This record gives sequence, C-alpha cells and structure tokens, in this order.
Amino acid sequence: MNSIAAPVMPLPLSGAVDVLTIIYLVAITAEAMSGALAAGRRDMDIFGVVVIAFVTALGGGTIRDMVLGRFPIGWTQHPEYIYLVISAGLLTTVIARFLHHLKRAFLFLDAMGLIAFSLIGCSVGLALEYPTPVVIMSGMMTGIFGGVLRDVLCNQVPVVFRRELYASVSLAVCVMFLSLRAAGVDSDLNTVISFATGLSLRLLAIRYEWQLPIFSYRERWD
Amino acid sequence: MNSIAAPVMPLPLSGAVDVLTIIYLVAITAEAMSGALAAGRRDMDIFGVVVIAFVTALGGGTIRDMVLGRFPIGWTQHPEYIYLVISAGLLTTVIARFLHHLKRAFLFLDAMGLIAFSLIGCSVGLALEYPTPVVIMSGMMTGIFGGVLRDVLCNQVPVVFRRELYASVSLAVCVMFLSLRAAGVDSDLNTVISFATGLSLRLLAIRYEWQLPIFSYRERWD
Amino acid sequence: MNSIAAPVMPLPLSGAVDVLTIIYLVAITAEAMSGALAAGRRDMDIFGVVVIAFVTALGGGTIRDMVLGRFPIGWTQHPEYIYLVISAGLLTTVIARFLHHLKRAFLFLDAMGLIAFSLIGCSVGLALEYPTPVVIMSGMMTGIFGGVLRDVLCNQVPVVFRRELYASVSLAVCVMFLSLRAAGVDSDLNTVISFATGLSLRLLAIRYEWQLPIFSYRERWD
Repeated sequence: MNSIAAPVMPLPLSGAVDVLTIIYLVAITAEAMSGALAAGRRDMDIFGVVVIAFVTALGGGTIRDMVLGRFPIGWTQHPEYIYLVISAGLLTTVIARFLHHLKRAFLFLDAMGLIAFSLIGCSVGLALEYPTPVVIMSGMMTGIFGGVLRDVLCNQVPVVFRRELYASVSLAVCVMFLSLRAAGVDSDLNTVISFATGLSLRLLAIRYEWQLPIFSYRERWD
Repeated sequence: MNSIAAPVMPLPLSGAVDVLTIIYLVAITAEAMSGALAAGRRDMDIFGVVVIAFVTALGGGTIRDMVLGRFPIGWTQHPEYIYLVISAGLLTTVIARFLHHLKRAFLFLDAMGLIAFSLIGCSVGLALEYPTPVVIMSGMMTGIFGGVLRDVLCNQVPVVFRRELYASVSLAVCVMFLSLRAAGVDSDLNTVISFATGLSLRLLAIRYEWQLPIFSYRERWD
Repeated sequence: MNSIAAPVMPLPLSGAVDVLTIIYLVAITAEAMSGALAAGRRDMDIFGVVVIAFVTALGGGTIRDMVLGRFPIGWTQHPEYIYLVISAGLLTTVIARFLHHLKRAFLFLDAMGLIAFSLIGCSVGLALEYPTPVVIMSGMMTGIFGGVLRDVLCNQVPVVFRRELYASVSLAVCVMFLSLRAAGVDSDLNTVISFATGLSLRLLAIRYEWQLPIFSYRERWD
C-alpha cells in the first residue's frame, strides 16, 4: 500500500519534456515493432507477439523501476502506453512483409529511442538521488534491457552484448549528460546537446560498423 | 523496512475465498509437478528440480507482486505454500514414471490453476487500485509467468507463446470478470461464472486444438 | 520516494563483520571474473563482458533484495562495489590466458563466496523478520542466483542445477547457521563455525565429486 501511494515521478525535464515525450512515444512504438519481428522469427502466436512487443518496449523501464524501488512502475500509470505498444505489435504482424524496405527508418527510430530511454533513465535516477554510477546504470538499464529481455525470451544470447556500438552509446550519452549537468549547463540545452551527440555517435557507429573489441575465450577447464 | 511493514493483502473474495484457496493449493501443486517434469527433461539434479518446481508454481505471483510493488510478496508470508511446492517437486521424481497415465488429470488441474491464478491476480490488482488494463495484466502475469520462467530457466522458448489457447483464456477470464464486476454482478457469483466459463473455454481449446494465428517472419535484414 | 528513504541495512554481524566483508569483496571479485570468462565463451564484446561480470557478482543480492522488498538495493549504496566488479571483469579479458593455471584458487574463492553470500543473505532475511524458510531462501538466492542469471543471459541451462554439491552446500550452511542461532550460540562464533563447515563441505564435494541424484525424464506426452 505504502509503495503504491507514492506519486508518479514526473519527467524532470522542464522545457524539453514535450519533445522528449514525443520521441519516447515514437521510440516505444519502434521497439515494440522490433520485438514483434523477433517473435515472428520464433513462430510465436499473436499473443506471444504482443508480450514480446510489450517487453521490448517497456521492459527496460520496468527493470529500472524494480531495481531502483520506484513504485508504481511508470507504465502502470499510463494505460495509453500499454495500448500503443500492443497496437504496434499487432500492426507489425499485418505489415511485416513491407518492413524490410523501412530498415533505415527503423534503425533511425531505434537510435532515437536508445538515446531518449537513456536520458529519461538518468533523470529518474537523479530524481531518486542515487549515487552517480547508479544514475548512469539507470540510464543504461532503461536504454538496453528491453532488448535483453526480448532476446532472453526468444532464447538467444542478447544481441546488445555483441553488436556494433550500442550499449556504449547509451553509456556515452549518460556520462555526457551528467558531466554537462555538473558543469552547470542548463537542463534543456544539456538534453539537446546530449541527444544530438548520442544520435550522431550511434548513426556513425552503424555507418562505419564500429565495434567494441570482442572477448573470445575458448579454454575449457574441466 | 517500510515496504516490509505493509500487511499481507487478504484475498479480496469473501464467500468464494475458501473454494478459490483450495483450487489455488491444488493448482500450485500441479504446476510444481509440471515444473519438476520439465527439469527432469533437462537432467537436473534434485535441487534444480525443486527450484524449477517452485518457480513454476509461485513465480507468476512473485513477478506480479514485484511489478506491482506489493511487498511482502505473498508466499513469503505462507511458509506452508513453500513446503507444499517443494514436496510436490520431490514427489514427482519418485512417481514420474506413472504420471503420463494421468495426462488428462494434469491438463484439467493445470486449466483450473490457470483460471484461479488469473482471478486471484485480478483481485490483487483491483485491491491495489491500479488502472483496468494493469489489473488485467496482473491477472495474466499471475496466470502465465510461472510457465514463462520455467521455460527460460530450462533454456527454451516459452511454450505459452506458441501453444493452443492458453494465455488468451487468461485474458478472456480477466476481461469477463471485470466486465461482470462493472455491471454490478455479485462478487461470488461473478467468480463462479468466470471460473466456469474460463475452464470450459480452456478444455474446449485443448479438445479441438484451437490456436491463435501464428506469426512467422523469416526475412533477415542483415 | 518512501522506499528509497529506507536506511541501508548494516550487516548484522558485529565482530565478524570485517572479516565477512573482506571475504565478500574477494568473492564478488572472483564471481565477476567467472562471469567474464562465461561471456568470453559466447564471444561477447567488452561491454557484454562487464554486464555479465556485474550480474554474476551482484545479481544474487539484487534478486534477493527485489524479492524481499528491501530498497534501496545493497550495491546502489556502495559505488565501490560497482567499480570493483567492473574492474575485475575488464582485467579478466587481459589476463584470461593465464587463468586456467589458477583453477584451484578460483574454485576456492568461489567456494568462499558461496558461503559468505549465503550467510549474508540469511542475515538480511533475519533483519527483515521474514519466516525461517524465507530466511533460508534469502541465503540461497544470494548464494546461487548470480550464477543462474549469468547462465540465462549466456543462453544455457543453469549449471548450479546440475553440478556437484553447490546449492545444497548453501542450504546446509543456512540451516546450520539458523539452528546454532536458535540454540543460543554467539553470533560471531556461529558465523565462524558455519563458514568453516560449509567451506569444508564444498571442498570435499569438489574433491570427491559428490553429486545429488539426477532426475532424468524422457517421456513425451504429446
């Protein structure tokens, strides 16, 4: 009861909140669609598609809130997010055959989502007054754990642990945002700068296939 | 401390509570046994069997409570549930060779459990005053996430996302229960009607192998 | 907000706390390194290595705190744990080729960690005044769920459900600790006795390859 009585945290970004919210809605839509396609690759039924779409879009924020003890969890107070994500998942099953033509648009929306999720996650961690490294992890959990849950439920090794710069872009955005904030930069300006830098970094990483070093270990100890 | 101080939520179903509790106990026993068999298919040791039995039986309610911020989690205040589930898991390893003769009984108990879990989950969501779509998700999480966790721990794609009508029965039961409640139907009567309808639907789905449409997606974007 | 306001639980072991804390730090380092090696077996990038290292070392305590409703979660108030675990993960990628020479040291540190995690988990459960079986589960979750999460994220059946005595050692330590406590044995003495017994048991289990019985089930019901 007491946990539930806590008010919903407003997004602590004053002027930029509207733009970031719109980007957020676009992002969860894109993430839901990517989740639905992953479910289709596993021959799931319509229900499974909707679950995976939901988990991919809203799972990162859910894990963040559960780890930070922030109840009620964000989407539970926003049924419109739930409807949006379910609709996006169902729509995907209808238009899937056309989606590969939109690959570039998808990657762009996904990149926007990654940055928006990371910035929102940082803001949540800040508002709860966690130590800085936890604030950074809050941003990264929001940015990437939806995709991790999607891959676990689809029974594959999470792709974000192996792909070209992705999680590291989330890290870079969080660190830049917190550094500029510590330097006294205005919050809205900070959001704009961090967003633009992060998006550029991600798009360059896709374009030039930048990767982190891979760690391969083959020795068996048995 | 504060979260822990919250009283345990009583099941908010007055007259029907006793019957629903008995069905619940039968259901977690059946779910524990199904978990133990899944562990046996992976050659786990006795300890692994017990863990998978526990997670299958009580994992759905655990995830529901963690997502809804409802602490202490139900089974932590009912050690007798813990003992029951562990016993059922261990017993299964002894009598496993006879269980396939009981396939029909199992499917029936499992169906009862699915409906009971869903109704209990709805009641918990209602008592915490969550919005309606979250209440429905509360019912469905309780109904199906035990099986999802079981399959993730046994390293396979969750079967509830691919099987004949299962999760959708949970959804139907939750929607019917909330609709009748909104229409002013007495709570006990509502429980009986929803239970009977849901059970019939599930048994018919098994009998006639009703399925949701499958979404298969094969295109690689790479 | 309210959950977050709760003070961090001090380790409720007075005199033994310093030794147990040191063992804890050694243990999360060893666990992080084992996680990094597992990530390397899946060809993850440096970021994936760090995530798996983190989850292996601190994931057990995280799940325990989330299940028990204990916020803020332990490591969020100890950034130094975060840095330690990340460093250990990164270091592992550099020195991996030499590590198999240290197999024995690893197994020893891992055994110490298992026991320390279990005792700390029991103490947390006791401090929150959960019923005895939940206190035991608190110890076991702390001891083994880091490894379970590691294996789930690396897409394999958790090895702790199939290996020689491991989880059962955690169980034995928890039961012994609580029994001696109920018998009125001094807390520090109890910690020393339980630690020594548990460590011996684990090392003997490794030496003589003691195993729990395996439950193999092959019948398909379809």
